[in-house]
Amino acid sequence: MNYPNGLKKLTSHKINYKNRGMTLECEINDSNEYYREIDKAYIYKKPTPIKITKVDYPSRDKTIIKEAFFTIPSTTDYNGLYKGKYIDFEAKETKSKTSFALNNIHPHQIKHIENIYNHQGIVFLIIRFTTLNETYLLTAEKFLNFININKRKSIPINYFKENAYLIKDGYKPRIDYLKIVDYLIGGI
Amino acid sequence: MNYPNGLKKLTSHKINYKNRGMTLECEINDSNEYYREIDKAYIYKKPTPIKITKVDYPSRDKTIIKEAFFTIPSTTDYNGLYKGKYIDFEAKETKSKTSFALNNIHPHQIKHIENIYNHQGIVFLIIRFTTLNETYLLTAEKFLNFININKRKSIPINYFKENAYLIKDGYKPRIDYLKIVDYLIGGI
Repeated sequence: MNYPNGLKKLTSHKINYKNRGMTLECEINDSNEYYREIDKAYIYKKPTPIKITKVDYPSRDKTIIKEAFFTIPSTTDYNGLYKGKYIDFEAKETKSKTSFALNNIHPHQIKHIENIYNHQGIVFLIIRFTTLNETYLLTAEKFLNFININKRKSIPINYFKENAYLIKDGYKPRIDYLKIVDYLIGGI
Repeated sequence: MNYPNGLKKLTSHKINYKNRGMTLECEINDSNEYYREIDKAYIYKKPTPIKITKVDYPSRDKTIIKEAFFTIPSTTDYNGLYKGKYIDFEAKETKSKTSFALNNIHPHQIKHIENIYNHQGIVFLIIRFTTLNETYLLTAEKFLNFININKRKSIPINYFKENAYLIKDGYKPRIDYLKIVDYLIGGI
């Protein structure tokens, strides 16, 4: 569970503008903002789910949360609309050079990915190998194939090289993942 | 801003099982859960957005939020996937017998509804007149038409009677709004 990290992302959205220093989450948020600006797609990060246990009402129309905890998300982090299609994905970074550990994706999320895939949503993972500086889009189909066939606890980098799409770094947007979505849905 | 109310909904999901006593939000959450159980649709309420201002780390892998505030949502409360289509809506209750006050929908949300409508998403409002015990589905088209043509600060009940779809109370699901979505998308 990397919630302390998730929190850091939440509270300091843009720490470092140098490309290498920006987290994947920030780059995706920036890209989604850009897609909205140019009226291309409406994809948002969902707020982090929390469980509120204490509140204060210092005045009639003010509420302060005094105690709360992060909870495990049951769905993926991002969803939205592109070209009339439902888009859904999870984004993760790993420092490993050799594989992506599957315990980064909760069982609920795997079930969610499966459900969305079965109901004709466009669903995928964006995985960044930070040390290699390589970012991949892995479709739900290829992801589910892997976990159905293998008993391994991680997906080796070679599986990404052979089955996923490498996303090149850009300026605007930083992560042009919709280019790959276009290819997946048979667009231009 | 009805955040104290929003919070109440968050922390006590099912207060009262008698139909009249259940909030619209609870009934929609129950209906969405039912739709998921029968593998019909995957529609979720987004977590309430908050701004975290203080945290504690009592141990290495534990994070406690010590101070946070509710923030204004920039999108609608619910979205998801049904029959391969992107579904998006906002749900609101009013005690008024005569009209729905438009200040219940934030300007950002109106812009969001417009964007989703323009990009072929299925987007609507579910409005309950609690005193009348009537719940309506108002499509984005009819909603945007109203606010574009009128300078009024509220939508009169007659506009709902003439332009929206009445959703009957049920048992499973309590609020079968997908029946109306079926009609809208030309299904059975």
